[in-house]
Amino acid sequence: MTSPAPTVLVFLDPAFENGRIADSSQPQLMATDLGATRGDGVFESLLAVEGRARKVQAHLNRLGTSAEALDLVIPAQDAWRRAIDTAIAEFRSTHPAPTPEEDEVVVKLLVTRGVEGAAGSTCWVQASPSPAGSRRQRETGIDVVLLDRGFDTDAGERAPWLLLGAKTLSYAVNMAALRYAHKQGADDAIFTSTDGRVLEGPTSTVLLAHLETADDGTGTGSKTVRRLITPQLDSGILPGTSQGALFAAAKAAGWELGYGPLVPQDLFDADAVWLISSIRLIAPVNHINGQEIGTVAVRKQLTAELNELFAGIE
Amino acid sequence: MTSPAPTVLVFLDPAFENGRIADSSQPQLMATDLGATRGDGVFESLLAVEGRARKVQAHLNRLGTSAEALDLVIPAQDAWRRAIDTAIAEFRSTHPAPTPEEDEVVVKLLVTRGVEGAAGSTCWVQASPSPAGSRRQRETGIDVVLLDRGFDTDAGERAPWLLLGAKTLSYAVNMAALRYAHKQGADDAIFTSTDGRVLEGPTSTVLLAHLETADDGTGTGSKTVRRLITPQLDSGILPGTSQGALFAAAKAAGWELGYGPLVPQDLFDADAVWLISSIRLIAPVNHINGQEIGTVAVRKQLTAELNELFAGIE
Repeated sequence: MTSPAPTVLVFLDPAFENGRIADSSQPQLMATDLGATRGDGVFESLLAVEGRARKVQAHLNRLGTSAEALDLVIPAQDAWRRAIDTAIAEFRSTHPAPTPEEDEVVVKLLVTRGVEGAAGSTCWVQASPSPAGSRRQRETGIDVVLLDRGFDTDAGERAPWLLLGAKTLSYAVNMAALRYAHKQGADDAIFTSTDGRVLEGPTSTVLLAHLETADDGTGTGSKTVRRLITPQLDSGILPGTSQGALFAAAKAAGWELGYGPLVPQDLFDADAVWLISSIRLIAPVNHINGQEIGTVAVRKQLTAELNELFAGIE
Repeated sequence: MTSPAPTVLVFLDPAFENGRIADSSQPQLMATDLGATRGDGVFESLLAVEGRARKVQAHLNRLGTSAEALDLVIPAQDAWRRAIDTAIAEFRSTHPAPTPEEDEVVVKLLVTRGVEGAAGSTCWVQASPSPAGSRRQRETGIDVVLLDRGFDTDAGERAPWLLLGAKTLSYAVNMAALRYAHKQGADDAIFTSTDGRVLEGPTSTVLLAHLETADDGTGTGSKTVRRLITPQLDSGILPGTSQGALFAAAKAAGWELGYGPLVPQDLFDADAVWLISSIRLIAPVNHINGQEIGTVAVRKQLTAELNELFAGIE
């Protein structure tokens, strides 16, 4: 990209019930804002499809949990909901999508600790177009590399100041991991812990599927059991809002669910692996460290099934 | 504090040879700047005393090393030097210090990856007053707690994407560690590694001193050997510019120098411990986890000696 994407900004401001729309072509942040000088804040990213923001409650809940971990006081969820609606409506009216299929808006919720020495956080909602690369990777799949996150799976519980369960603005390591993966010719990364567990992607949750043949209960036939597995949540990773919603839908559709601990060999042995997140949604993993995961046919089939489940999520 | 400190902002801008002074009472950053949304950037903090910026070359060198670790291209050192001079001159002319003793200006150098989707980093220099708390803690000393940093001392070398040797804008963990320390009734923290080593403070370098009695070479008398020790630099910590300068001055004054590995017991056994940094300078540590370090008299004496050495640093 060589020019910034069109963007709508809506600041949460008590004087504006539905949020204050600000000119995104002009500077809107103080240079002394602790978000810019210390990465001191929290955020969420969610997708609005055809004008409907998805999983808003789950994102607002996680924003609240993150803020609490950083001792940040943030506006009530209703104020966020109104600002989100304002941002989406303004973006779709100023940048209408050419087709319904392309009517996707990326909505970011941002909170910083505010200007150093002043009282009060800075809170805003940003609406921008869904990156074309994200949409493409849902179709083509991605290659990933495993990268050491440097922490063991107990660090988050032992040392809450490491903020491992919070989605903070301090994402320099996540961004560096993605750049490192790109230099290796990969599209993305999966972090592992120093005690050998699979953790998460820099901006996504890891899922894997196993197909198992089981007795169908008639005594003569057999059926395929679909099992969907994700790393356990107490290993210092972010609880994935997409993973949570997809697990609920998969369970209702008869899938069996499992939670780690997972080791890298579990990924290599899986029938399919995905990185799942709110903007790129379900990205099938073709290769990990150069090794193919499952087969093209099974990846395609299972990804189609998960996409169908995911399409029903509010 | 209830209102922001007076601040001068000077942006590095090719159209302004000595930097472009910007109104710090107005927003100057784009809300989509990756510094604000991802903590994606690097910084330095240095002190100007009576108009003279200290250790500029060491800070510019470290800024360059940090930028390289993040694949950031930044302006030449000369451009930074001119912007620093502009910021200090402007600050001292608009906010003259009442006495020479109070003529301290905090100078921050900041680099972000710039606006998402646009080419080029955002670079500026910020000048603001030295916090009164910093000056007080040099005199009174500080109490600290040991906090687990979650990493082992090999992580930095093994996993460069963790950016352990870079001074990035992603300081949320450092800030959370300070808040945690304050809640424990302490002033500051010292991080330890998972393999039991002493690392650094969230915004400072750890030093300790041992006094040893040795033969003075006359065969009849004895002398006191002063040994100054800091954790080894390859343990995933920031190379301290103040530590480097002080070590050089101490060596010239006859001190012996040592580099870790250090374990917490080395701190408890020391005759004095300090947290040293560019703004607060040399802060003697009175207690660690509630246990007194050395004695008041020895701490005072050694701190006075180090302050004298440090005063001569350019």
